[in-house]
Amino acid sequence: MTSKLFSIVIILIRKVERGMDQNQINAIQDDYSDDFAWCYGCGRLNDEGIHVRTYWEDDQTVSLIQPDQKYIAIPGFVYGGFLASFIDCHGTGSASLALHRKNGHEPGDGTTPPRFVTASLHVDFLRPTPQGVQLKAVGKVEEIHPKKFKVEIQVFANNLHVANGEVIAAVMSKSFING
Amino acid sequence: MTSKLFSIVIILIRKVERGMDQNQINAIQDDYSDDFAWCYGCGRLNDEGIHVRTYWEDDQTVSLIQPDQKYIAIPGFVYGGFLASFIDCHGTGSASLALHRKNGHEPGDGTTPPRFVTASLHVDFLRPTPQGVQLKAVGKVEEIHPKKFKVEIQVFANNLHVANGEVIAAVMSKSFING
Repeated sequence: MTSKLFSIVIILIRKVERGMDQNQINAIQDDYSDDFAWCYGCGRLNDEGIHVRTYWEDDQTVSLIQPDQKYIAIPGFVYGGFLASFIDCHGTGSASLALHRKNGHEPGDGTTPPRFVTASLHVDFLRPTPQGVQLKAVGKVEEIHPKKFKVEIQVFANNLHVANGEVIAAVMSKSFING
Repeated sequence: MTSKLFSIVIILIRKVERGMDQNQINAIQDDYSDDFAWCYGCGRLNDEGIHVRTYWEDDQTVSLIQPDQKYIAIPGFVYGGFLASFIDCHGTGSASLALHRKNGHEPGDGTTPPRFVTASLHVDFLRPTPQGVQLKAVGKVEEIHPKKFKVEIQVFANNLHVANGEVIAAVMSKSFING
């Protein structure tokens, strides 16, 4: 019983630590190769971008983000295109996490993960998203083809469920780039 | 025959003028009330936004935009979230144009148009979108409810058809804002 209590305390401390500094968690985007790290949505090398970072939480994927005040829909509410961008990069990041894990790897283990592109993006806006609140995207990933994944995403502003998204992400190939 | 030739010349001159300065065309966003003109995607008062402007071309709606170089997917290609934002605001702008016309008005006639919000957004990314090229969104609007419109959108980079979109846009209501 004491041991169980001890475990719960440790888990709680870890959750608090995690909440206090998300940047300490290994995100998949931290390991993208430099060539593919310029995305406005999730590229760590794009100084002007929004820096979505995606990681595993149990068998779900999570990204947290604090939208800049310039991303206005109407004053007081977050721009829908920002939410679409957040969902888009959470989707490709989630697909990359899933295929990386399937290949036996986890973020931070020194292996470059596969890079995905978005084939399609769908967003249902459920209610206005308040500004000044950290947003959380939670994803469930399903392999629908060896090189294609479907990611079902829910977005929350605190406890407010503000949007649902679906991303179909495909492994980036040279033929895709060359059209 | 001379008269017909004269008409054709006048039309061509107008098309050239239009092409040379899109800002001379009355766009629906120019007439949004100040309270609703702060959108990152299409608000004329948001200095940091991307300023989508949407107008009629015959019975279709058109927006043109030159993406800033920071909106990178991978170097050389436009960020998908930018395209989603462009489609999103082209959709709400198109719906506003349609209801405004149904109410007997056109952009620039001194009447404030109705403001729409996005209920859902779908984007199919057909191929990578090259940077450094002006993008054109072309929309077909269909009323699916007195306060709800569906807009089918095609996006082109020069003659390259790069994306398709569908936006369901609903008239913004006080109850929507109050959630």
